[in-house]
Amino acid sequence: MIGAQAMIRTLVDAGVDVCFTNPGTSEMHFVAALDSVPEMRAVLGLFEGVVTGAADGYARMAGKPAATLLHLGPGLGNGLANLHNARRGRTPVVNIVGDHATYHLEYDAPLTSDIAAAARNVSSWIRRPETAAELCDATADAVAAAMGPPGQVATLILPADASWSDGATPVAPRELVTRRSVDADVLDRVAKVLVSGEPCALLIGGSAMREAGLRAAARISAATGAKLLGETFPARLERGAGLPPIERLGYLSEFMEIQLSGMRHLVIVDTGPPVGFFAYPGKASYLVPDGCEVHVVVDPSDGLDAVGALEQLADVVAAGVDPVVQSLARPERPTGAVNGETVAAALGALLPEGAIVCDEANTSGLWASGATAGSPRHDWLTLTGGAIGVGMPLATGAAVACPDRPVINLEADGSAMYTMQALWTQAREGLDVTTIVFNNRSYAILNMELGRTGAGAGGPKAKSMFDLSNPDLDFVSLSRGMGVPAERATDAAELTVALEKALAEPGPHLIEAILPTVL
Amino acid sequence: MIGAQAMIRTLVDAGVDVCFTNPGTSEMHFVAALDSVPEMRAVLGLFEGVVTGAADGYARMAGKPAATLLHLGPGLGNGLANLHNARRGRTPVVNIVGDHATYHLEYDAPLTSDIAAAARNVSSWIRRPETAAELCDATADAVAAAMGPPGQVATLILPADASWSDGATPVAPRELVTRRSVDADVLDRVAKVLVSGEPCALLIGGSAMREAGLRAAARISAATGAKLLGETFPARLERGAGLPPIERLGYLSEFMEIQLSGMRHLVIVDTGPPVGFFAYPGKASYLVPDGCEVHVVVDPSDGLDAVGALEQLADVVAAGVDPVVQSLARPERPTGAVNGETVAAALGALLPEGAIVCDEANTSGLWASGATAGSPRHDWLTLTGGAIGVGMPLATGAAVACPDRPVINLEADGSAMYTMQALWTQAREGLDVTTIVFNNRSYAILNMELGRTGAGAGGPKAKSMFDLSNPDLDFVSLSRGMGVPAERATDAAELTVALEKALAEPGPHLIEAILPTVL
Repeated sequence: MIGAQAMIRTLVDAGVDVCFTNPGTSEMHFVAALDSVPEMRAVLGLFEGVVTGAADGYARMAGKPAATLLHLGPGLGNGLANLHNARRGRTPVVNIVGDHATYHLEYDAPLTSDIAAAARNVSSWIRRPETAAELCDATADAVAAAMGPPGQVATLILPADASWSDGATPVAPRELVTRRSVDADVLDRVAKVLVSGEPCALLIGGSAMREAGLRAAARISAATGAKLLGETFPARLERGAGLPPIERLGYLSEFMEIQLSGMRHLVIVDTGPPVGFFAYPGKASYLVPDGCEVHVVVDPSDGLDAVGALEQLADVVAAGVDPVVQSLARPERPTGAVNGETVAAALGALLPEGAIVCDEANTSGLWASGATAGSPRHDWLTLTGGAIGVGMPLATGAAVACPDRPVINLEADGSAMYTMQALWTQAREGLDVTTIVFNNRSYAILNMELGRTGAGAGGPKAKSMFDLSNPDLDFVSLSRGMGVPAERATDAAELTVALEKALAEPGPHLIEAILPTVL
Repeated sequence: MIGAQAMIRTLVDAGVDVCFTNPGTSEMHFVAALDSVPEMRAVLGLFEGVVTGAADGYARMAGKPAATLLHLGPGLGNGLANLHNARRGRTPVVNIVGDHATYHLEYDAPLTSDIAAAARNVSSWIRRPETAAELCDATADAVAAAMGPPGQVATLILPADASWSDGATPVAPRELVTRRSVDADVLDRVAKVLVSGEPCALLIGGSAMREAGLRAAARISAATGAKLLGETFPARLERGAGLPPIERLGYLSEFMEIQLSGMRHLVIVDTGPPVGFFAYPGKASYLVPDGCEVHVVVDPSDGLDAVGALEQLADVVAAGVDPVVQSLARPERPTGAVNGETVAAALGALLPEGAIVCDEANTSGLWASGATAGSPRHDWLTLTGGAIGVGMPLATGAAVACPDRPVINLEADGSAMYTMQALWTQAREGLDVTTIVFNNRSYAILNMELGRTGAGAGGPKAKSMFDLSNPDLDFVSLSRGMGVPAERATDAAELTVALEKALAEPGPHLIEAILPTVL
C-alpha cells in the first residue's frame, strides 16, 4: 500500500474522517488516495485560512480533530492565523503539510522553504516522517498528540515520496490519554478558600465552559457566594435557557478591573489569569487586583480534569445546592434602525434551539451575548486567539461537524474580508450557515484603540487606516459571487424578516446589516 | 520624539516612502505617527497577503523597498506566502511586524506567539529592537539589509513600547553596498568556453533580465552561437519591440530537458541551475543533461554584478557585434471563442507601450508571452516563488510604484481567490490596473499534475478537489463588491472591446474571461 493510502486509513481508523483541503502538486497522491478510503470526507477550501479555521470549528463541535491538507510552506503560512486561534483554544487539529520529496529538497526548487520553522509558531508537536514505512506511526501519533489533553495543533510534514512510495501499513489508533485528576490537597485548600467568607471569584474556561463544568461551578457559586466568571474568549460555551448563565470577563481591561474589584481570592479553573489583551501605556498588563490571592486549580496546559475538579469541589462546598439556571426569555422582535442592539434583538428573538453561534462581530457584537442569554439552549464559539478572519471558516467547520444544527455567524465587516472564501465552501457543501455581516464601514475597534493606547485622536492618514468606505464594500455582491444567496437590511424589521427566512431555508445565506458608519 | 515617529522619518530619509499596511492595536502609535511625516504614503490592504504582495510588486518596479505594517504573528502568517515569493525573487522588503510591548510578553496574552519563528521561513535578517533608542538604528539597518545586494525580506519586529516611548532620534541612511565585480579569471575561463565552439547555453536570470543584461547576453549569443535562455520565473523581465527577445526555460521539466538537450556547457548568470519545480516519481530533479558542464558566473546569493559580468564577457567575445532585437509585430484582434490563445491575442493586439504585465494566469496564460513578444516595450512580472495569490497584490504594488504606466494582471481563477481583496485597494487608490481573470472553473494545473505525478486518473473525490464549479464563481459580482467595475466576456471580440475600454479609462477594471471548462 502506498503511504498516502495507508495514512488516510490510519486517520479514519483513529476517528479522523474529515479532511479540509487546499492541495497542490506535492499532495497529488494524497488527493488520489481519498477515493480509496470511502469513509474520509474531503472538503475543499479556496484559501488555506478557510481550511484551518474550518478544522478549528469542526473540532470544537465534533470533539475530535479534522485533518487539514496544506501545500508546503506558503500553504501553511496562509493557514497560520487560524491555526494560531486553534492553538489558543486548545483545539485538536491534525495539520498535514505536504512537502517536496525528501531527495528534492537539496535542489532548492522555488517552493522550498523551512516548513518546520513556520510550524513552530503554532505547533509544539511537529513530525516529518522520511519514508512511507514511518508515515502511519507518525500519523497515529499525530492524532493522539492533537487530542491531548489538552488539545493542540499537531503538524505532520508529509514528503511527497513518503506519500507515493509503497511499503506502508495502516497503524491502529493510539490509546488516548485521559485527563488526570487534580490533587486532593489542592482541592482541599481551594474548598477552604471558597467557604472562607472572604470575597472570592471563581474564573473558569476551556473544558469547564460546557454544561457539566458550568453546573458544578454554578453550584459552588450559589453555595459560597463566589462570583462566577468565565474567560473572555471561550472556544465553546454552552448557554441559554436551562443552563447556568455565566458572566464573561470583558475584553477591555478597564471592565475586567471592575469585575475583579474587591476580590481577595481568585480561583482559576482551566484558563489563564486575567491579563490585558494588549499593553497600554501606563496601564497594568496583569489584572489581578493588589492583595488578591490567585489559586490555580487547573492550568490549561496541564490537561487535568477541570470538570471533575469542579464537581468534587461542588460536592464538598455545595452538597444539596442546585445551580441557578437561565429561564427562557427572548427579546421582542426589533423595529427601527439597524444597529448592534437591534441586530442582537433579532438574533435573540429568533435563535433556534440547538443553534451554534460563531461570534466574530467584534465591537458590533457587544449586545449579542446579552440579547441571546435567555434564548433556547445553544453553543457560542468565539475568537480564541485574536487573529481575525476565523468567523466564516469556523462556521463552515461547525456546520460540517453538526449537519442537523443551524449555524449563525456574526461577522464584522473588517474581519469578513480576511477569509470570505469560506462562503464558497458553504455553498458547495450546502451547509446551513446564516452569516450576518455587520457593515459599519470601519475597523471600529481600531478607532477605539487609537484613543485607548494614547496614540491621540489621529490625523487624516491615521484615520484612513480604519476607514472601510471609499469604496464601500458590497457584501451582497461578494456573497452572490461565491454562490451564497444574500440580502441587505437597512432597517431592523427588514433584518428580522431576512433572518427568519434565512433560518427557515436550508443551505447558506448572508445578510448584510447596514449599520451607522463609525468614524 | 517617540519611536514610531523617528522610525518613519528614518525610513523616509532612506528612500522608503510607501508603507503597505494592515495594522492592529499594537501598531496604533505607528499609525498615528504617519501624519507627522508627510512624505510617507500609507496604503491600506484588507488582508496581509495583499500588503506583502503589493510590497513585492512595488519594489520590483521602484527598485527600492516599500515597508509593510503587519499585526503580530498572525498578521505575519497571513503575509508569509507573498513574502516567500519576494524572498525567491530577491525583492527588497522592509517587513515591519508589530508586537506586544516588551513587558507584556510574559503574560502570554491571546495574540502572543513566536513571531521570529514564523519570520525565519522568509527572512534571514530579523531584528527586534527592545527600546525606542535602538529602533532607528535597526530601521536603517533593515533598509540596507533589504536592499542587499541581493535584495531580501528584512523583518523588523516592532514592540509597541519601542514604538510609543520617547527618546528616539532619526538615523541617517546607511551607505548602500554596491555589487562587487566577478573575478577576472572566472570571466576568462567562461569566455574560453563560450568561444570553444562546443554546444553551449547561456542561462540568465535576476538582475540580468533587464535591458542592459539582455543586450549584453544577446550580443554574446549572436557572436558565439550560445543558446540564450532566461529563468522560468523572473521577478522582472524587460521585453517587447526594440529589446532582445529571450526564450525562458519551461515550467515542465520535460520541456526544460528538450531546451537543454545536447548542451556541453551551461553558463549561468544570476539564477540557479535548472531543477524540477516539483519532484515526480522516477524523473530527475536536476535537469542539467549528463555530460554538460556547469559554469556559474554569478549565483544569485552572491550579490555580484551580473550585468557588469555579461558586459565584460560581451566586450571580449562579441566586440562590434550587435544584439538581435525584437521588431514590432502585433497579432490581429481575435474573434471566435474565448480561450487562452484568443485572450493572449487580444492582449498582444492592444498592449500599451510601457505596460507592466503581472502574470499569474498559470495554465491559461501559456500563450500570453508569445502573443506579446512583439508588442511595444513592456515589463513582465511573474510568480517567482510558486506561492499562488500574488498576482492581484503584485499589480497593486506595481501600480503604486508607477502611477503613469498601465498595469495588466493576468489572473487564473483559482489564484484570484487567494488575495482578491487587493481589488479594493486598487479601487481606493484609483490604480490603473486591468485584471483579466481566466475563468475555466478549475485548478487546471492540478488536473494536469495529477497525471504527471503518476497519481492516476483520479476518482470522483480526487477530481472534485480541482473543480471550481458547483457553485461557479462570479468574478464580475466579486469585483463590483469591492468597487472595481467589471465585465464578463464570452467571445473574443467582446473581450477585445472590453480590454480596449478598460485600458482607455483610468482606474481599475476587471474582465472575466469565460473559458471552456477544464475537467
